[in-house]
Amino acid sequence: MTDAPLDAVLSHVDAQLDASVERLFELLRIASISTDPAYAGQCREAAEWLTDELKGLGFDASVRQTTGHPMVVGHARAATGPNVLFYGHYDVQPVDPIELWANDPFTPKLGEENGRKMILARGASDDKGQLMTFVEACRAYVAVRGNLPVGVTVLFEGEEEAGSPSLKPFLESTAEELKADVALVCDTDMWDEKIPSIVTMLRGMVAEEIEITAASRDLHSGMYGNAARNPIQVLANIVASLRNPDGSVAVPGFYDDVEELAPHVKEQWQRLPFDDGTYLGDVGLAIPAGEQSRSVLEQIAARPSCEINGIIGGYVGEGFKTVIPAKASAKISFRLVANQDPAKIREAFRAHVKSLVPADCSVTFKPHGGAPAVAVPADGPFLTKALGALTDEWGEEAAIAGSGGSIPIVGDFKRLLGMDSLLIGFAQTDDRIHSPNEKYNLESYHRGIRSWVRILDALAR
Amino acid sequence: MTDAPLDAVLSHVDAQLDASVERLFELLRIASISTDPAYAGQCREAAEWLTDELKGLGFDASVRQTTGHPMVVGHARAATGPNVLFYGHYDVQPVDPIELWANDPFTPKLGEENGRKMILARGASDDKGQLMTFVEACRAYVAVRGNLPVGVTVLFEGEEEAGSPSLKPFLESTAEELKADVALVCDTDMWDEKIPSIVTMLRGMVAEEIEITAASRDLHSGMYGNAARNPIQVLANIVASLRNPDGSVAVPGFYDDVEELAPHVKEQWQRLPFDDGTYLGDVGLAIPAGEQSRSVLEQIAARPSCEINGIIGGYVGEGFKTVIPAKASAKISFRLVANQDPAKIREAFRAHVKSLVPADCSVTFKPHGGAPAVAVPADGPFLTKALGALTDEWGEEAAIAGSGGSIPIVGDFKRLLGMDSLLIGFAQTDDRIHSPNEKYNLESYHRGIRSWVRILDALAR
Repeated sequence: MTDAPLDAVLSHVDAQLDASVERLFELLRIASISTDPAYAGQCREAAEWLTDELKGLGFDASVRQTTGHPMVVGHARAATGPNVLFYGHYDVQPVDPIELWANDPFTPKLGEENGRKMILARGASDDKGQLMTFVEACRAYVAVRGNLPVGVTVLFEGEEEAGSPSLKPFLESTAEELKADVALVCDTDMWDEKIPSIVTMLRGMVAEEIEITAASRDLHSGMYGNAARNPIQVLANIVASLRNPDGSVAVPGFYDDVEELAPHVKEQWQRLPFDDGTYLGDVGLAIPAGEQSRSVLEQIAARPSCEINGIIGGYVGEGFKTVIPAKASAKISFRLVANQDPAKIREAFRAHVKSLVPADCSVTFKPHGGAPAVAVPADGPFLTKALGALTDEWGEEAAIAGSGGSIPIVGDFKRLLGMDSLLIGFAQTDDRIHSPNEKYNLESYHRGIRSWVRILDALAR
Repeated sequence: MTDAPLDAVLSHVDAQLDASVERLFELLRIASISTDPAYAGQCREAAEWLTDELKGLGFDASVRQTTGHPMVVGHARAATGPNVLFYGHYDVQPVDPIELWANDPFTPKLGEENGRKMILARGASDDKGQLMTFVEACRAYVAVRGNLPVGVTVLFEGEEEAGSPSLKPFLESTAEELKADVALVCDTDMWDEKIPSIVTMLRGMVAEEIEITAASRDLHSGMYGNAARNPIQVLANIVASLRNPDGSVAVPGFYDDVEELAPHVKEQWQRLPFDDGTYLGDVGLAIPAGEQSRSVLEQIAARPSCEINGIIGGYVGEGFKTVIPAKASAKISFRLVANQDPAKIREAFRAHVKSLVPADCSVTFKPHGGAPAVAVPADGPFLTKALGALTDEWGEEAAIAGSGGSIPIVGDFKRLLGMDSLLIGFAQTDDRIHSPNEKYNLESYHRGIRSWVRILDALAR
């Protein structure tokens, strides 16, 4: 039984799809909204439901108390092969505005949209549907072979949509128990409906708030206009100095540690379907604003950026006041890529700003956190195997992707457990996560399960 | 009696000073706060008190109803000589915060500060004390000579501290009645405690609000950072482009119509006591920010300026949000000097801004009023005579001054009545107008009265 061929496991998945959907529906019926204390009971219920499922598959599983909603941890040790840690989250976003839902968000149903079948419910995609692809893949192995091809530890969190307040202390206290050879995180999108992908690059961030002070009080522009330094002008000069005319970031030394994209990834990105015009056109823009020598895809996923996230100074109410304010401030952030040191970038930024502040003005800096980028080596063995498995399942070359934003769990796994993560998900960008009428394509669910069957098989080899 | 020498009139002023102070005290006891409807009765009382005073001096005077607080108009025609229109306002600012007053603001008293006697009350300087200098000068002429040396029309307004809502329609309806050869406005400061001055230059203004729109909605900097144009960056580039490194305004054509200061005025300004370091040091600054080739005095009084009065965009609350906002806006104003056309400057500014907006972004402009600068010819006969009279009284060469701000009445007199105005006042910059413990130096009052005696005499020659 343990050496049943891979195809037998996959066929079992196909044959049991309806039952797999029904099990997902059971989980979706639990309104595990983590941000609202009124749903704490439902969060616990979801954790217990998952624990029972894992126990049914032979996992040594338990609900773990935290100061917030509980974690679920389950182990299925294997005699051989690597060990993986699978992560997903059972909590969901609130459902407001409820009146925009076509169906009750916690009464899941199958629907159809543009000829595709889909599972409709809050959490269908984010993240209950995604995490259940892995549970159902494990179920197929257990049913067909009696065991899993690799050692598996599962971690299900219940506070991901609430900022994960308990995660870091929990990881610290269970580091030895959870540590594996690689983490598998299922909370991301496919490249598109046909092309699977693994996110291997997550940009880091440095955020700063700066305040320029000029005069000791607000001044009247009639009495001081021209002669008194205007802090808004100083701030604008600083902001304007942050980008070169070619779209690159102008802070000295900013690109010193930036590495070029691996040639095979860059080459793949040129082949992958991604239309710069459509990406920008969808939000009313047309001209890429970043480095002119780079594609939009590179700009958003593989290159560091500098953004002004907020600015304020002087009179901003109705009408007009001819004030020269004493102060003006801005919130500025940098997205970082692999090898950029947040502390070094922060210092380079501050030195650059200071060089532009007139001698009779002053500047204060308020740090708003910083985290390095996370990158999985583009040619690592686990990645290569997983890419191959996805390519086999979907019939399209699996893409290596970058995410412009950060996914904190990946940094935590790296820092606290010393593990790389493979971010493998089957969601689509139109899944309406966090919005009314959230959906998960039935194909995402079905072939997601099949994908994990293949990935676990590949990782064992 | 009509040919009593000037000295006799001046001596009468000196001899009657105590009575003059007591009359001012009567007016100061009336709490004519124009912005608070609760004090409408007191505003009327002040208007009636002034009308009675003028009648007592032989003026054909009356209270004139408006839709707000009344005006006072009085005429004392003369057989010969020019006709002047004297303007002042009887309304005062509110007294908040009342707890910071050492004495009741409407119980005037004489005090002493740094060895100088002063009149302490709300309105002592702004503008009851100032307007009474003229009334008392007229009283001295009437007492000593039985008539005035020139034809005098008096206009006292009761809404100056409330934005003068009734002034323009009143001037339009009484233009023929009020029109004179020159207007005398007593609502300004002396150069310092020793040097009298006449303000002949008032900067004009053009104010604009601009809003830059980039994407059709707020974006997440993780997903769009670099590629999506940031409207704050665009706005900062525009603001930064408004000043050249040498401090001059960089809008093309901005200085086209700007005339140099008359040589004798420029030469006088080099002699006059004005310390750039002190002027800026008083507000915590040290480095003049305007045209590097110009003195601070020129920068604030005789050169046009560009100021950013407000800027806002993105997230400006506590903490941090990595948003790329859809919009950002700024309030920008230009102070204009003589010959600059507000409409032309507005168009030049808009064209400059448009040239800096990327093709996939848009800009909207919201005008916030514009008014040309007002300038009295630096060598006009009335000005020359008045300067001479002031120099005779104070023993120091009277200064020609510019005011960085606007004084709307002067533009109204020019546009609606076709008259130039001589702005002659005896206030000091430390009079705490609009603030608790307002004061007027007793010397300002006494020699202010004497100054008007001399000015009326000089204008008659």
